[in-house]
Amino acid sequence: MPALPPWKDKALFTPGPLTTSLSVKQAMLRDLGSRDSEFIGTVRDVRQHLVDIAGGSDNYTAVLVQGSGTFGIEAVLSSVIPPDGKLLVLVNGAYGKRMLKIAEVHNIPTIELAFPENTTPDAAMLDQALANDETISHVAVVHCETTTGILNPIEVYGEVIEKYNRAFIVDAMSSFGAYPIHLEECGIDYLISSANKCIEGVPGFSFVLARKAALSATRGYARSLSLDLLAQWEGLEGDGQFRFTPPTHVILAFRQALRELEWEGGVIARGRRYQLNYEITLDAMQKMGFRPYIEESKRGYIITSFYYPAHANFNFQSFYERLSVKGHVIYPGKLSHADCFRIGHVGRINSADVRALMAAIGETLLEMGVDLERV
Amino acid sequence: MPALPPWKDKALFTPGPLTTSLSVKQAMLRDLGSRDSEFIGTVRDVRQHLVDIAGGSDNYTAVLVQGSGTFGIEAVLSSVIPPDGKLLVLVNGAYGKRMLKIAEVHNIPTIELAFPENTTPDAAMLDQALANDETISHVAVVHCETTTGILNPIEVYGEVIEKYNRAFIVDAMSSFGAYPIHLEECGIDYLISSANKCIEGVPGFSFVLARKAALSATRGYARSLSLDLLAQWEGLEGDGQFRFTPPTHVILAFRQALRELEWEGGVIARGRRYQLNYEITLDAMQKMGFRPYIEESKRGYIITSFYYPAHANFNFQSFYERLSVKGHVIYPGKLSHADCFRIGHVGRINSADVRALMAAIGETLLEMGVDLERV
Repeated sequence: MPALPPWKDKALFTPGPLTTSLSVKQAMLRDLGSRDSEFIGTVRDVRQHLVDIAGGSDNYTAVLVQGSGTFGIEAVLSSVIPPDGKLLVLVNGAYGKRMLKIAEVHNIPTIELAFPENTTPDAAMLDQALANDETISHVAVVHCETTTGILNPIEVYGEVIEKYNRAFIVDAMSSFGAYPIHLEECGIDYLISSANKCIEGVPGFSFVLARKAALSATRGYARSLSLDLLAQWEGLEGDGQFRFTPPTHVILAFRQALRELEWEGGVIARGRRYQLNYEITLDAMQKMGFRPYIEESKRGYIITSFYYPAHANFNFQSFYERLSVKGHVIYPGKLSHADCFRIGHVGRINSADVRALMAAIGETLLEMGVDLERV
Repeated sequence: MPALPPWKDKALFTPGPLTTSLSVKQAMLRDLGSRDSEFIGTVRDVRQHLVDIAGGSDNYTAVLVQGSGTFGIEAVLSSVIPPDGKLLVLVNGAYGKRMLKIAEVHNIPTIELAFPENTTPDAAMLDQALANDETISHVAVVHCETTTGILNPIEVYGEVIEKYNRAFIVDAMSSFGAYPIHLEECGIDYLISSANKCIEGVPGFSFVLARKAALSATRGYARSLSLDLLAQWEGLEGDGQFRFTPPTHVILAFRQALRELEWEGGVIARGRRYQLNYEITLDAMQKMGFRPYIEESKRGYIITSFYYPAHANFNFQSFYERLSVKGHVIYPGKLSHADCFRIGHVGRINSADVRALMAAIGETLLEMGVDLERV
């Protein structure tokens, strides 16, 4: 197979930034003033559209935050937990750990409820922890832990958290737009995701879907100016403007991405395309002799972790680079206890792209002399 | 004059986001993986280019920070001042005040040395303040106060600060790329600017030019995870990657913008174009009877504040909207003590664009029945 021609970009099988449509990128070929009415209208539409995707309840609002997804997570954690609050984090991967780290930087008392990376956090243990400690004010969890691709049952945690009347923070970075999430039904107070994930926009901002009643009660809690969530909301609600320069082009791309999500048939239809990408990947990978890290019942269709094959000739860096030269970008692992790599199923990629990747992987194994026991 | 045709974007005479070239925007029509070697190489080139523009000394490095310019300012203030440090801010406008506000959120002790918005901070008073208070560890000032367009003499302050061996932080948001700044000669430890100002990129990140020796001595000072400047630097120096998802498209646009700056002839040539824009603006505005707020010797060529004309029929909102419909976006004022509006001279605009704006202003005054005493 020849190397990628220079006029074609590689297909991204990563957790993001992802491959986006040309029309999404073309939406950036304009310069709008950030205080101009057209841009203000765009931001208003985008915010309403995000709330609609998540159930459309009037009790929620959407706040855009400049920066990557982690900036959105930090905006929530550093803005909504009161000085006498305490955060419990359900951890089964690197992104749960990152929330702990953010809380630590801001001297927010935390409790870590840690679970192995291949299991979902246990709701009964969460129940017990909340029963035992009334000072826990907030609970946070990652919906799809991109570390492994495992899907954590947020609706189950939501019920427990509601029973004890604590606030619920969900990092839905890599799942929002691909899995239907109903904020009210899941009892979510704050959900964070980002522009360059399953909405298929380009990177440059994150967004927070917040229960208005919760967010309005956070005055005086913010530990940063740029990441002050309440002030950001008040700016967007007031004159409709960002407090500080917004990434105007990235937001134009995002509006187009939202239109394309709607055109595709919404979250359900998009999820179906991703699921098909996942199924084709899994089937072909297993036939080639690769083994997934997470058991089937817990696996999401966002990204899949595969064990390095147990073959002396396999070397991940070489495997990665050979695929990259052929035009396919996969992703390294991020696990503490197992050697894995990851293949993403999201972004503007379809069955044909996935089949091309699978063919390239087969070819690469041959080139490397990695002779796996095929199923 | 007819309204703007729908296929043409308005020209932005604002402090940013600015009008950029089509080729800069077209550089965003690609999706690169953030860990892919091509992107890593792009980030490396961009960082080196920024250091080169500022004097090219090996003692400095460039750190890109996701978010708007304020995020870059907050990254510096919240990351480089030690727990027992104290910040003196020279204030003569809204952006100086913003630095004070950031310091306040992070409980950093501050001293405000405030001056009227139409005067530059007095170096002798700075000298005295530093002589009187040995606990002041850092001094911050805005180079071009976009509030008014006044240009503060950073090289003069740099000499004073060096004499007392304190650290010097310069907010060069709206001047970097338009005025030559030599970091070493000005004794600057940290300079902050942003992608969507005089380099003529699109908004989405800020950058910090830092003296390596100063930055490496800040371990443990960061008060945020996302805005941790030292960690961000170490990430970029280590595997060349951002710690958290970078705005890949915006960075591709910025690389193209840097190429176009070089093609134009560098900072001197760009400054000359802006100065011409300024001169045409000032001449025409004064002939129409407008008066600038800042006296000539202190005025920069980035943006100019004009008093509202003393005429009963003048209404800024109507003036603004009439110009906007004609395809020209100007900017409201931000002054505490005088009614002004602002006209920017920067971005991808040239003499012809400025003359078109001046003609539109003349026509708008006629429409509004604002009959000024012409010079």
